[in-house]
Amino acid sequence: MKSKRVAIVGASGYSGEELVRLLLNHPHVELTAVTSRLNAGKSLGQVFPKFAGHPRAGTLKFSEPKPEALAKQADLVFLALPHGVAAEYAVPLLQAGAIVIDLSADFRLKDKSVYKDFYGHDHPAPELLTKSVYGLPEIYRDQIKKASLVASPGCYPTSILLPVIPLLKAGLVKPTGIIADSLSGVSGAGRKVEADYLFVECNESVRAYGVPKHRHLSEIEQELSIAAGATVTVQFTPHLIPVNRGILTTLYLAPGKHFSNAAEMEALNKNVSACYAKAFGQEPFVRLLDEKALPDTKNVTGSNMVEIAWRLDPRTGRLLVMSAEDNLVKGASGQAVQSMNILCGFPETTGLV
Amino acid sequence: MKSKRVAIVGASGYSGEELVRLLLNHPHVELTAVTSRLNAGKSLGQVFPKFAGHPRAGTLKFSEPKPEALAKQADLVFLALPHGVAAEYAVPLLQAGAIVIDLSADFRLKDKSVYKDFYGHDHPAPELLTKSVYGLPEIYRDQIKKASLVASPGCYPTSILLPVIPLLKAGLVKPTGIIADSLSGVSGAGRKVEADYLFVECNESVRAYGVPKHRHLSEIEQELSIAAGATVTVQFTPHLIPVNRGILTTLYLAPGKHFSNAAEMEALNKNVSACYAKAFGQEPFVRLLDEKALPDTKNVTGSNMVEIAWRLDPRTGRLLVMSAEDNLVKGASGQAVQSMNILCGFPETTGLV
Amino acid sequence: MKSKRVAIVGASGYSGEELVRLLLNHPHVELTAVTSRLNAGKSLGQVFPKFAGHPRAGTLKFSEPKPEALAKQADLVFLALPHGVAAEYAVPLLQAGAIVIDLSADFRLKDKSVYKDFYGHDHPAPELLTKSVYGLPEIYRDQIKKASLVASPGCYPTSILLPVIPLLKAGLVKPTGIIADSLSGVSGAGRKVEADYLFVECNESVRAYGVPKHRHLSEIEQELSIAAGATVTVQFTPHLIPVNRGILTTLYLAPGKHFSNAAEMEALNKNVSACYAKAFGQEPFVRLLDEKALPDTKNVTGSNMVEIAWRLDPRTGRLLVMSAEDNLVKGASGQAVQSMNILCGFPETTGLV
Amino acid sequence: MKSKRVAIVGASGYSGEELVRLLLNHPHVELTAVTSRLNAGKSLGQVFPKFAGHPRAGTLKFSEPKPEALAKQADLVFLALPHGVAAEYAVPLLQAGAIVIDLSADFRLKDKSVYKDFYGHDHPAPELLTKSVYGLPEIYRDQIKKASLVASPGCYPTSILLPVIPLLKAGLVKPTGIIADSLSGVSGAGRKVEADYLFVECNESVRAYGVPKHRHLSEIEQELSIAAGATVTVQFTPHLIPVNRGILTTLYLAPGKHFSNAAEMEALNKNVSACYAKAFGQEPFVRLLDEKALPDTKNVTGSNMVEIAWRLDPRTGRLLVMSAEDNLVKGASGQAVQSMNILCGFPETTGLV
Repeated sequence: MKSKRVAIVGASGYSGEELVRLLLNHPHVELTAVTSRLNAGKSLGQVFPKFAGHPRAGTLKFSEPKPEALAKQADLVFLALPHGVAAEYAVPLLQAGAIVIDLSADFRLKDKSVYKDFYGHDHPAPELLTKSVYGLPEIYRDQIKKASLVASPGCYPTSILLPVIPLLKAGLVKPTGIIADSLSGVSGAGRKVEADYLFVECNESVRAYGVPKHRHLSEIEQELSIAAGATVTVQFTPHLIPVNRGILTTLYLAPGKHFSNAAEMEALNKNVSACYAKAFGQEPFVRLLDEKALPDTKNVTGSNMVEIAWRLDPRTGRLLVMSAEDNLVKGASGQAVQSMNILCGFPETTGLV
Repeated sequence: MKSKRVAIVGASGYSGEELVRLLLNHPHVELTAVTSRLNAGKSLGQVFPKFAGHPRAGTLKFSEPKPEALAKQADLVFLALPHGVAAEYAVPLLQAGAIVIDLSADFRLKDKSVYKDFYGHDHPAPELLTKSVYGLPEIYRDQIKKASLVASPGCYPTSILLPVIPLLKAGLVKPTGIIADSLSGVSGAGRKVEADYLFVECNESVRAYGVPKHRHLSEIEQELSIAAGATVTVQFTPHLIPVNRGILTTLYLAPGKHFSNAAEMEALNKNVSACYAKAFGQEPFVRLLDEKALPDTKNVTGSNMVEIAWRLDPRTGRLLVMSAEDNLVKGASGQAVQSMNILCGFPETTGLV
Repeated sequence: MKSKRVAIVGASGYSGEELVRLLLNHPHVELTAVTSRLNAGKSLGQVFPKFAGHPRAGTLKFSEPKPEALAKQADLVFLALPHGVAAEYAVPLLQAGAIVIDLSADFRLKDKSVYKDFYGHDHPAPELLTKSVYGLPEIYRDQIKKASLVASPGCYPTSILLPVIPLLKAGLVKPTGIIADSLSGVSGAGRKVEADYLFVECNESVRAYGVPKHRHLSEIEQELSIAAGATVTVQFTPHLIPVNRGILTTLYLAPGKHFSNAAEMEALNKNVSACYAKAFGQEPFVRLLDEKALPDTKNVTGSNMVEIAWRLDPRTGRLLVMSAEDNLVKGASGQAVQSMNILCGFPETTGLV
Repeated sequence: MKSKRVAIVGASGYSGEELVRLLLNHPHVELTAVTSRLNAGKSLGQVFPKFAGHPRAGTLKFSEPKPEALAKQADLVFLALPHGVAAEYAVPLLQAGAIVIDLSADFRLKDKSVYKDFYGHDHPAPELLTKSVYGLPEIYRDQIKKASLVASPGCYPTSILLPVIPLLKAGLVKPTGIIADSLSGVSGAGRKVEADYLFVECNESVRAYGVPKHRHLSEIEQELSIAAGATVTVQFTPHLIPVNRGILTTLYLAPGKHFSNAAEMEALNKNVSACYAKAFGQEPFVRLLDEKALPDTKNVTGSNMVEIAWRLDPRTGRLLVMSAEDNLVKGASGQAVQSMNILCGFPETTGLV
């Protein structure tokens, strides 16, 4: 298998660091460049001691992010930048022929007016919004294969979209009244040096934030609306909890057809089970739990796996679905590598098991 | 002020330990007995090193729990026992003339058939269900004053009932479709020596449990139904998060009257604000947050305070309410002491600030 | 008892916040001013939500730190400032007749050349070094009573000095070869917004730092040398561990007299026991553990207590002593309040139990 | 490369679980049996949800541990049992021709009287003590190659022996007065369902334990004595800290030759540097830190790496050495797999990077 040269722009954040880890251990790629304005000139091991002495880290040093140079050094470039600055690199990299996998939210929306509504300014490169592919492999695998620009979804959207899309497509749940209550580890905030993320402020603390209109609602609603064939509005409450990694999302859904007795409930339960089996039964990174187990972030951290379980509640008539993932792997860098594998023709699980 | 002699039955669990802490520092009571089958004969300081040398711990030793002896030693007895065994002590203690404040769920339900439905067996002393007072001071202060048996509510019910009851009473939210999503610290499970609560199993882990029919739903629905004047069914999802103490509850409510523009939203917002101000403005243990802040468990742990904040979501038409409390204080032992203060005629905040 | 008006300069750090908590609940003082350049104009509750609605917080607002104004508003002023800036406030406050209790290291050393050696610059007010009293109540109670400037010791020194000073004074351990290995919670670093103290960098992490010449060695060695009547040099290794609060120090000491059999060991053990009983038997804030228990920070956090235990090792001939304290209470603000109580003639435990 | 069939006896503890993880992902072995009395009959995924659906977990089920059956199913058997029961399996497995890698302390001591002194009973199979090889690859690589019974060292010994042995062999430090102060994550205690290891008892807690005569001192002193060519007695203090994984050890050593000025110190520093470079410069699992960095467990958790750094203290004349490792990987299962790789002729880092 022909190996690819890959680069990471913005490799000093948590997602970038996780990408370095995954790509250093990926048998079919060579990590040729890592950029960071702050750390330019330093070796990988100086910035991240855990990579010091890695057999494949070699003499790799952080460099200033320069699109022209990167396009020469790499066939495929990951952008792990704060939201809003990816366009600056994506445009010249694409023009120079590189494939771009962007981990930010910059190219995930299809409608520039929705972007403006949620992000508060015009999109810097609206022409790319039609070109980009939403990088959720379980939903858009075929499109990813041919993409030149992948907008890799982040942690909250992934934890909500994977469990809900199949149910909406199958008409098993209503497109209205969806509530997503999510609990995120602190690395989800990125390596931001702000008082809110100090150890003492997060440890022994739990709090909601960003309610009621979190930016990522825009892409969540976009993708659920596509699946439902109708406009979907979601209630989404993110919470910060004192773990390094992991997202647990609890979803409150209304079954498409009301159930009013045990037989109807059992029938619905079988339909949900069949729906998930069809959607994810062959997926290497989705683990459907059996009737006794519930997702737990500790079973997925460090891996690219999403756990999903569901329960019907005969008292309220609702369908509860829970998902767990590692926000830095399936919710960020692992998913981006999964897209890279698809795009490059590598087996999809390469470097991710 | 005449001081009272008090005893704690079951003082070796987390709630019992917290009661010891509060009562040792309470100026108007004398802690005359603490019982524990497991620790009988040991001093307070041997079981809980942090109380060793406490100026008021004196020579207090754990004893076997014997109702007759306790009724002689104490005017008021706290029961901090596992659910299901409180009746064994409450009946003889009440007969002997002691006042009983029970921290378990045993006397919280008014309807013995609901008890059987949720707890799976007949109530052992159904005649006491009409006698007991639900010990939520902000709602039942007058009844607590005259009670001989207080059924002090636990952590989840308190975090849900306080924010929702005033809204239901005022008709500001519908009695249907209520969702309560709660995150609890591990002490909420009690001092149970089970693998699920080992450090390594809880740390860096988040998980839901007990869905969809948690036992405490029975009392939550009982009290909300009283407030609403209609049968209320609640969707309740408890989660275990890696903190010692603290409960954060996020509530999803449907406003009684739909709002469809900014003016209607602002009007509703004022009504909610006025409703809470009226209900809790003078309450010493409810902190209503202003428009910018959201509850955080770290601001209430160690205290008897509940924090409450709310947000209207113009996109979904819902009212979100969030509450935070210390599950061992306002969610257990602090609340029980608050009831004791009311019952004994002490200033309500004595020993709790 | 005549109450005192007190002020806190630098009330927005962790020590300052803890001082606010202690002083708001202290029956004999009135907190008349809290300063913070960053938060001037904000109310206590805006900066620290947990104090919002405190019955004694009233309308207290943060102000700019101005010595002249403070000297009028308060009889006694606590300085909870970063090291190096306390002199700026202490000099004018003392001149204006206020009593000053400084929580920084600025006035703890008696020798200005030692200060320069460890802090790298000349002392800004060397004339105060002879005036200040080292505020360790268990050692300097009598001097504190008459002090106008108390240099209140911090967390590491307190955890080392209390267990070692009595042994040195009694000649039970040698003044040479002392090793102190300390583990500190993250609040010990103060509310510094630096990447090293982010949740994700501290959680699931343990590391030594500041070796081998930590600044606080200067005062540790000063006080141990006074106790020993000889120059003492200490090996001190601080470690950062993922807890909010608490310091555990393990001390490796050489007995003054070698023991070579069980009888000699038992005799030494009795001497150590007697020495500690004499030094601390009546101390309200020192808990001497029995032979089976070892200090645990969870037994002291939130309180002004220090736990101490010791073990003789017949295999190595060493005496091991362990201490635990809350770095923000006995290691900072509680100790400062203890000195205030002594100085003002209040019972020493007021507001601290 | 010919693949090996391997089995794990006692696969339901933390070390066993980590072995499963490593062996499922090892390209040259097939995991043919996992035993657990408690979980016999259950699948891997039922006991450890994180392995459910692993492509190589297949239909593997836990079985009762039966040496005869195991000897047929596997070429090499890992014993991950509590101390004291390994002999029961090792003897028949060796007789049946299997290679045994034991993760317990049962075969680590060479002298059965030392075993009795530290473990309190006669060794159950003393004849194997001469046959077993102490499985520290960096020291005994050649012996491991030819071993049939490897006594794989645990977490504390590894964290102490690797940094100290080269210094003792080179005569750079004295064999007397060695102090090892270790901080361990809670998984080091194993999956013991005891109150001491409950989340609430460990979180926000730090404590020493097992002082002054921890069982593992026996093997530590055995190996250091071999390196020194003299009897070595060690002062060892283990502490429990609230992290899942990781050991940090701080060592206090006396240089063989006293240094009394900067030039002598610099010379010694170079000697230590050269000594470590010679011992570990080519080792794939030892990372020697440069002069600015100090070990941090977060840089080694999840990997088989040990980090080592040192500092000379001109004030005390001591050499401080610090090491960090993951107690379940280099301190247990990773090290055992490393020995397996050596023994089986696989590249030593296979499955461990």
